[in-house]
Amino acid sequence: MIILAADTASKSCSVAIVSEHSVLSEITIVTQKTHSRYLMEMIESAIRRSGISKHELDGYAVTIGPGSFTGLRIGISTMKGLSEATGKPIVGVSSLDALAASFSFSVFPVCSMLDARRGEVYYAWYQFTDGVMKKKNQDAVASPKSVFADLKTPCLFVGDGSEVYREVLMDQDRGNVFFSPPSQNMIRAAHVGYLGMEKIHSQDTLENALIPYYIRKCDAVYQNE
Amino acid sequence: MIILAADTASKSCSVAIVSEHSVLSEITIVTQKTHSRYLMEMIESAIRRSGISKHELDGYAVTIGPGSFTGLRIGISTMKGLSEATGKPIVGVSSLDALAASFSFSVFPVCSMLDARRGEVYYAWYQFTDGVMKKKNQDAVASPKSVFADLKTPCLFVGDGSEVYREVLMDQDRGNVFFSPPSQNMIRAAHVGYLGMEKIHSQDTLENALIPYYIRKCDAVYQNE
Repeated sequence: MIILAADTASKSCSVAIVSEHSVLSEITIVTQKTHSRYLMEMIESAIRRSGISKHELDGYAVTIGPGSFTGLRIGISTMKGLSEATGKPIVGVSSLDALAASFSFSVFPVCSMLDARRGEVYYAWYQFTDGVMKKKNQDAVASPKSVFADLKTPCLFVGDGSEVYREVLMDQDRGNVFFSPPSQNMIRAAHVGYLGMEKIHSQDTLENALIPYYIRKCDAVYQNE
Repeated sequence: MIILAADTASKSCSVAIVSEHSVLSEITIVTQKTHSRYLMEMIESAIRRSGISKHELDGYAVTIGPGSFTGLRIGISTMKGLSEATGKPIVGVSSLDALAASFSFSVFPVCSMLDARRGEVYYAWYQFTDGVMKKKNQDAVASPKSVFADLKTPCLFVGDGSEVYREVLMDQDRGNVFFSPPSQNMIRAAHVGYLGMEKIHSQDTLENALIPYYIRKCDAVYQNE
């Protein structure tokens, strides 16, 4: 099985082609610019570099949030279009799951944290046992202080949210807080691909699983209320 | 400081642009074909995608081995050329260190293992404490069985060598052996970039540090002996 995976949930943009046993190609950029400028060209480049033809793809995986409203819409629309044109299945993956998957053998509990603006973060907690991910809560939105409030043990923060609120998190308890190295502080699409492959294997491809998972309403709606 | 990093030590080929706080761009492919076909074009693509100009690069980092003779020569020659043309420093990084760096918070000791052919692997052992890497032995070459011989505790194997000799390693002690997920089983150049940045900061840029580190003589020499 060969999967094309993409992530546009945060300020990074990543595309990968993965097979069961190996990543074939992966391209990741971190940019403040809109993903619509890059995504399709990155997909074409990743396919070309992977050595396979686009007709060999067996399915698609894309992050459905939480994250940037515009980014998610671009990623999901593009991948849905490819899936519909080819008739191959598509699955949605939590952006926080994909972020945590970089730390599959972590000695500490992992907190994925993406900047949600307005003083808040999207976050979820994970525990890994022998490389197997166990998610401890549903994706949620809150202030970074409240995410940390109940913690007694050392933990590892990953994602642009933990970077933006680094000082706040360190103020809580310096000895208990660790941060992802910059080399692993963004979502890489290979992780989206393998999380998606699991879902396709388990036939977890319900249409509604592809609705963007914004958690809260978009800013425009808030401003009108 | 902005670093251009490359790895061509094994069957994967990876290029990244990294700054102190963030990966700017990264491209990785896994291919059986020669890296000379791809490397320079991947470097140009990574620079273009990073949003910086090549004149903003402050230095270069490249894997110097152990690994494929041909791959290492291509990577080191190309990066040395760029460094000489621009007058910016270049540093060599162990391919096994770069491979292990994906597991910087690993609960288990990590063994980086690259296929050395002829029934052997290049390998090194690492222990991570609070995200800090401690290397337990010099890069070495041996049979996969002998690498494992003395181990009593659970450990995590990463790299194409552990994939090729998976059955051999599992035969030794099923409960004690864990393997990298496929999403992290190759060298990503972002890790080369940050390991290189540390060396540039510590002024560990001796010219002889850039000599390819083959460990053993190349096959052609062996055949003539």
